Amino acid sequence: MKRTHTCGDLRKSDTGKTVILNGWIHRKRDHGGISFINLRDRYGLTQVVVDSDAAAELSATTAELKMEYCIALEGVVRARPDTMVNPDMATGEIEVAASKIVILSVSDTLPFMIDEKSNANEDLRLKYRYLDLRSAHMQNHIALRSKVAFATRQYLTDRGFFEIETPTFIASTPEGARDYLVPSRLYAGKFYALPQSPQLYKQILMVSGFDKYFQIARCYRDEDARGDRQPEFTQIDIEMSFVGRDDVLSLIEGMMGHIFKETLKVQLPAVFRRISYDDAIELYGTDKPELRFEMQMQDGAFLADLGTFQAFKDAIQGGGKVKALVVPGVAEKYSRKLIEELESTAKIYKAKGLGWMKVSGAEKAPALEGGISKFFEGKAESVCDTLGAKPGDLLLFVADSKAKIACTALGAVRTRLGKDLGLCEEGRFEFAWIVDFPMFEWNEDENKWDTAHHMFTWPQDKYHATLESDPGSVKGDLYDLVLNGYELASGSIRIHDPELQKRIFKIVGFSEEEGQKKFGFLTEAFKYGAPPHGGIAPGLDRLVMLMAGETSIKEVIAFPKNSFAISPMDDCPSEVDQKQLDELHLKIVK
Amino acid sequence: MKRTHTCGDLRKSDTGKTVILNGWIHRKRDHGGISFINLRDRYGLTQVVVDSDAAAELSATTAELKMEYCIALEGVVRARPDTMVNPDMATGEIEVAASKIVILSVSDTLPFMIDEKSNANEDLRLKYRYLDLRSAHMQNHIALRSKVAFATRQYLTDRGFFEIETPTFIASTPEGARDYLVPSRLYAGKFYALPQSPQLYKQILMVSGFDKYFQIARCYRDEDARGDRQPEFTQIDIEMSFVGRDDVLSLIEGMMGHIFKETLKVQLPAVFRRISYDDAIELYGTDKPELRFEMQMQDGAFLADLGTFQAFKDAIQGGGKVKALVVPGVAEKYSRKLIEELESTAKIYKAKGLGWMKVSGAEKAPALEGGISKFFEGKAESVCDTLGAKPGDLLLFVADSKAKIACTALGAVRTRLGKDLGLCEEGRFEFAWIVDFPMFEWNEDENKWDTAHHMFTWPQDKYHATLESDPGSVKGDLYDLVLNGYELASGSIRIHDPELQKRIFKIVGFSEEEGQKKFGFLTEAFKYGAPPHGGIAPGLDRLVMLMAGETSIKEVIAFPKNSFAISPMDDCPSEVDQKQLDELHLKIVK
Repeated sequence: MKRTHTCGDLRKSDTGKTVILNGWIHRKRDHGGISFINLRDRYGLTQVVVDSDAAAELSATTAELKMEYCIALEGVVRARPDTMVNPDMATGEIEVAASKIVILSVSDTLPFMIDEKSNANEDLRLKYRYLDLRSAHMQNHIALRSKVAFATRQYLTDRGFFEIETPTFIASTPEGARDYLVPSRLYAGKFYALPQSPQLYKQILMVSGFDKYFQIARCYRDEDARGDRQPEFTQIDIEMSFVGRDDVLSLIEGMMGHIFKETLKVQLPAVFRRISYDDAIELYGTDKPELRFEMQMQDGAFLADLGTFQAFKDAIQGGGKVKALVVPGVAEKYSRKLIEELESTAKIYKAKGLGWMKVSGAEKAPALEGGISKFFEGKAESVCDTLGAKPGDLLLFVADSKAKIACTALGAVRTRLGKDLGLCEEGRFEFAWIVDFPMFEWNEDENKWDTAHHMFTWPQDKYHATLESDPGSVKGDLYDLVLNGYELASGSIRIHDPELQKRIFKIVGFSEEEGQKKFGFLTEAFKYGAPPHGGIAPGLDRLVMLMAGETSIKEVIAFPKNSFAISPMDDCPSEVDQKQLDELHLKIVK
Repeated sequence: MKRTHTCGDLRKSDTGKTVILNGWIHRKRDHGGISFINLRDRYGLTQVVVDSDAAAELSATTAELKMEYCIALEGVVRARPDTMVNPDMATGEIEVAASKIVILSVSDTLPFMIDEKSNANEDLRLKYRYLDLRSAHMQNHIALRSKVAFATRQYLTDRGFFEIETPTFIASTPEGARDYLVPSRLYAGKFYALPQSPQLYKQILMVSGFDKYFQIARCYRDEDARGDRQPEFTQIDIEMSFVGRDDVLSLIEGMMGHIFKETLKVQLPAVFRRISYDDAIELYGTDKPELRFEMQMQDGAFLADLGTFQAFKDAIQGGGKVKALVVPGVAEKYSRKLIEELESTAKIYKAKGLGWMKVSGAEKAPALEGGISKFFEGKAESVCDTLGAKPGDLLLFVADSKAKIACTALGAVRTRLGKDLGLCEEGRFEFAWIVDFPMFEWNEDENKWDTAHHMFTWPQDKYHATLESDPGSVKGDLYDLVLNGYELASGSIRIHDPELQKRIFKIVGFSEEEGQKKFGFLTEAFKYGAPPHGGIAPGLDRLVMLMAGETSIKEVIAFPKNSFAISPMDDCPSEVDQKQLDELHLKIVK
């Protein structure tokens, strides 16, 4: 009883054919002695009919059938009467009149219904992941993921990239998060580490002359389990030799274009907008701006002079900023209570408060009301002119003597408003490059400079002379790809010059011995003619999540953490002493 | 100085063009004031000439250049004089007259020369893997590996397979070899295991209705480090629903055909020969026969009656076998000493000895000489007729009361002879399917039946009635793909019926509780309408190794074990108490 067709295949033109289908009982209902079965497989649904005059054996088998039984059936395709045609079903013009049914396997009572999308709570969905994966929702997402990965490989392979596997078992290297460690029984008392990324290996491959490398690579981070974070994740790891920043950027623009066209039939722009890190902070208060709506923040420094609001004056005098946001047409909608909620968002980002005013009056004679408007009496026209505000708009402000706090706090409010006001259109994909990142950032705790990204980033050429004298001004050849408010990829041109590498190590207070010990095998390799190189690593999980219009990574991974049999919580048969383990870990990572 | 062409691009038709190349100094020689440089990149070699009348700066830079310096150069393409054309080089018709050279990075003195294939010893090659990878040999193998993986994905994707990632962090399951364990710091005192294969997950995916799954998956085995064994390896993991054995076989035949055609331009037969496990043992003494030469073993039972050799008589009377091998035309070549070497091979496989005779005389009147010929006086014609032996042939025999010893020991001699006599043509690929494997094998130590492959193999239908009464006769729906004497893939149709699964557990003495505990999540999933399914998992490492004509896996992995920074031996900064670790492991695996 091997299938001749799938459950998505049959059309009116197949009428009269004898076919065999294999699949699952999606729904079954009896109507006037006739049984109607929706048979489901990966390819679709087909209506099967067991007529009231069916042979005794067929009738008996049909009576046994319950939801999610797996069956094979033979029957004849017949056109449905015009009134019964289902235009929402690909096979909706036909039905199969069953002549024989074989039960391949039975099903217990289901913990939840297999539907387009399961309504069960997440714990139950994870526990019965194998059933949750039968939903059209999960089937589509896993299929999308497969297609995205293949389109990626196709694009890169066509351009001469080799996919090269780098090891999972490596020596521990310091890369931000904690390494997972794997004790080896073979080598007495030794450990492997699992890679947080193939970063060092792909750089080595450039030294080896491979020129264009990629790998859809599994990576590991022993981080806290906040929300969606998975202990393992997948990235599209890319590295190229003899390239500059713009070569990497245009490769990725082409790659994303190919992926979206091949899988979603969406045409992306050939070039993504480029926003400097400084502008991103000024305009959106974040280096991963949501750009499905604009609503840029503005400089409100003029308000410190214009009005009498002391907090604005203090911020500017303290060397900080006043940031302003015009939210069009929502003055009436936003009650004091709703504005307080926005303020709570601003405070998460360390703002002291959220200033607000509402614009009323007429377009040519605007007035300001509520909030801090009393500090700007008689200045309504000037305020509205400068900010481009109109009656009905809500004005929001954050002022702080630390410029970055003013930006990020009001930026967070902007992002929240985008969601609250439904400004983020589904199915719309707004990419941007964030470029010209600072190379170093000041570590207040340790009173020293750290690299903002990683140690191997090439400082932009024009700053090479002033690396040591003015680290704070140095921009790196760093670039992030953002999509709909998420960081999708981070990359850089790397240092290939051992002397420059030593200078960077020194600035961040890394002794040559430390550098040697931790990255020795890379600096060692660089002694033998390293080419200029750079790369990037888009996250596959997040890309597919955004393409699928989801907000949780779990929706695009077949077996996320805490799905059955994955969580070590459920499956470790006995406790192990945590202190003992910590000691083992400490020995290896320190 | 960004390249306009690669070092493999330029042809006579480019003459006159000003070009920029980037690459490495492969060779440099000076001849009458002129410098000749072979510049190398991934794409090839180009001869660069710095003429004797070059500007001072160019001359000075050229003088600095040493092997493996990475440079950028600008120059004009010119045709070589006819006498200087190098037909062995793709760019051999031209040279580039350099006008400017920039040193991108310098190189220390090399530990070995970068050549087609490095002659350095393996330890040195591994230590400086990044340099070894620059050889044409390694570049080609890594490129081949990438192409094989892509061709695989292309073939399967075109046929509706989804590549689905299964987790690396799983619960420990018993699968033969030892699991690697990964302590989690997040979940106090818990471990993950790393998968030896995605076996259970791909079966779960079938339960989830994915129908056609594949994954080029990294797998892990904490096994002894004999020879070439890598702690991690890669397999092409495949599973399908609603299929029988022949569906899987023909899929793989098509896939191998596609891979070989796309990468090596080799046309494989559309169908591979199928040999039953019993026949493979009888004819070749192994279930992974080398078929680039035939030289099948024959049944020598008739010799027990025909002659007076007691060892033959004992073997037959003891229920065993006499196996015979005719080695054509080597009677003269094989001295007593060489035959003793063959015997030592037979003894490794537990043979008591290797019987031999040489055929001399004329074709119509053959004689037997040496070895055990005295036991067959006057029987030469009969012996030669039955075995199809001719004058000049060497006859070899192993007899044992255990039939399998006779077969495997003489089979090992056959395999060795294939190598010694050069019967295994390079570039020839002989595939075969080994089918009809026994389902169970007797465990003499524990006095019980074990499954020969794994617990989830479907016993062939005709044996279902006699599973318990005669386990030794049961054949499983198991199949191995062999290529040139290596097992390339192993697969089976799986059990999807929980009741049948319970019977198998019971036969191998696995209590229901044990089955539940170890495979609970699979048997649990099978309660909800599991489809019939089966699969296979060709090893990517071995496939590429055989395609590349190599005998070591290390030649086709960029970073094998013991290459720099991989071995935990070199990089673990401190010792950890082995006993402590063993305890930890025991707690989790028992």
